[in-house]
Amino acid sequence: MTISTRLTERLGITHPIISAPMDLIAGGRLAAAVSAAGGLGLLGGGYSDEPEWFDREFAAAGNQAVGCGFITWALRARPELLDRVIARKPKAIFLSFDDPEPFAGRIKAAGIPLFCQLQTRADAERALDCGADVIVAQGTEGGGHGGIRATLTLVPEIADLIASRAPQTLLCAAGGIADGRGLAAALMLGADGVVVGTRFWASREALVHPNLHDAAVAAGGDDTARQSVLDIVRGRPWPARYTGRVLKNAFVREWLGREEELRSARDEQATRYRAAAAAGDTTIAATIVGEAVGLIHAIEPAGRIVERMVAQAETALRRGAALAG
Amino acid sequence: MTISTRLTERLGITHPIISAPMDLIAGGRLAAAVSAAGGLGLLGGGYSDEPEWFDREFAAAGNQAVGCGFITWALRARPELLDRVIARKPKAIFLSFDDPEPFAGRIKAAGIPLFCQLQTRADAERALDCGADVIVAQGTEGGGHGGIRATLTLVPEIADLIASRAPQTLLCAAGGIADGRGLAAALMLGADGVVVGTRFWASREALVHPNLHDAAVAAGGDDTARQSVLDIVRGRPWPARYTGRVLKNAFVREWLGREEELRSARDEQATRYRAAAAAGDTTIAATIVGEAVGLIHAIEPAGRIVERMVAQAETALRRGAALAG
Repeated sequence: MTISTRLTERLGITHPIISAPMDLIAGGRLAAAVSAAGGLGLLGGGYSDEPEWFDREFAAAGNQAVGCGFITWALRARPELLDRVIARKPKAIFLSFDDPEPFAGRIKAAGIPLFCQLQTRADAERALDCGADVIVAQGTEGGGHGGIRATLTLVPEIADLIASRAPQTLLCAAGGIADGRGLAAALMLGADGVVVGTRFWASREALVHPNLHDAAVAAGGDDTARQSVLDIVRGRPWPARYTGRVLKNAFVREWLGREEELRSARDEQATRYRAAAAAGDTTIAATIVGEAVGLIHAIEPAGRIVERMVAQAETALRRGAALAG
Repeated sequence: MTISTRLTERLGITHPIISAPMDLIAGGRLAAAVSAAGGLGLLGGGYSDEPEWFDREFAAAGNQAVGCGFITWALRARPELLDRVIARKPKAIFLSFDDPEPFAGRIKAAGIPLFCQLQTRADAERALDCGADVIVAQGTEGGGHGGIRATLTLVPEIADLIASRAPQTLLCAAGGIADGRGLAAALMLGADGVVVGTRFWASREALVHPNLHDAAVAAGGDDTARQSVLDIVRGRPWPARYTGRVLKNAFVREWLGREEELRSARDEQATRYRAAAAAGDTTIAATIVGEAVGLIHAIEPAGRIVERMVAQAETALRRGAALAG
């Protein structure tokens, strides 16, 4: 039981499902579980300010082949970390947010597949200029940082761009895909595979406080919002074009639209935020999930999530062909 | 060559494609062309302040069976218009934006299929309470007025709601669907059909100034934005939760974020806007399209659009089943 695409062939994986390199949430256990189930797991090293995180989590992945993701603008402050990760021969390197050009050459020279995740057609033009092997078109419905275009239109628009400019380049859809229906839909739009965040965030292997898991299971897709409140309180200098989707909790409701005031009160609020995050207080700490949280009703092992996603997509694809008579 | 779903069976149409009831753009010629091609065309009477518009455009549709859409909050000021339309025995009545309850009973009592277009899961609960025959889940990527949820997550979340509460209710996807890839994707998500705006806006039969058509063909999906500037200058009292997606032209860039100032300068700017709209000045007049404008490269007859959408969806659906082995 599988779905074969150019992505599975090119990467030598069984299923066209990649777990997103979610900032510190996607550690070695999660990445290894996704790879063991036939997808590709990615480590999410976040802001590249904890080099020992990579050592620990690559070790936790054990013998499973996994890839690694970076926040591109953060990597610029610690470019040596890229060499350290390249030396581990990851199965893929995934750059998100900002121009991939400063790093693309070294990744390509090492023979490692370069994934560029992006949010607009203009970004995709740039990624093709930089020789991306796989473009990941990320829609605004996704959790965590992203842009404003939606997956449903961004994917086919970039598929057309790839077809005209660089047809050997692969395309993955990201943002809003949490089950086999989303996977099947992404394939219809012209994607070769999917990058899945929220659904794997809601897995047993994800490094998530159990209270946040409970909050996500109880939430629906109407309960999320894009905001920058969290970046202000955590002191992360994100470029303004990238906002983060989270559950609208009391802290977000308190500060949304009052960002300048929050900047002035940052020291005090940061202390409050850190304490809440450590305690798993979901009224303050961010539950970083996308709109697809409304499709998630339990925290499950990542391998089971992969299997069900594939089985459900197969059913949908066969039913679709039957509708076409 | 066709795609059969519960929607085509229930309505007795050939293809599961419905043209959106776009405010004054979707006249009788467009609606009739879509119905003649095997889909279902809808008239878009807008703000219900031109009753003669309905008489004229029903006449323009000739013998073709078409449906009719209303902006629900605007219909509240002219409820007698609903009876006038019901008397014409339209093939469907489509209510968008605001609570359908005040009108649902009369539509159901007349035996006319009631379509409720909505933007959140909470709205869908309400539409089911009102006895909607078809729920249209509209994503933020669509053109014109809408909400903030994306089609890709809203459709399956509402499909699950329908399955648990009222499985006989049908579901259409709207927002971001402009070709056969989008139609096939919507079917994978659990929709029984699609409601298509922008692609039919960009048809020969749509009542659109040729300059606006040219602007749309030249634009990409990155060029649109949600805004309320246009409602202010046109004096349309939309509830705050509904914004409108348009091409970001000079007028939108001038006033976006300065809405209060525009309210103060409304008389002068309204005169300027009306003149520009009459002249087809695309730097001021709104080109009301969604993100899927990036998938549109020519203004074509609506019938050809329907045919190609079906053929492309069939190809995608068959290819999808082949991927599943």
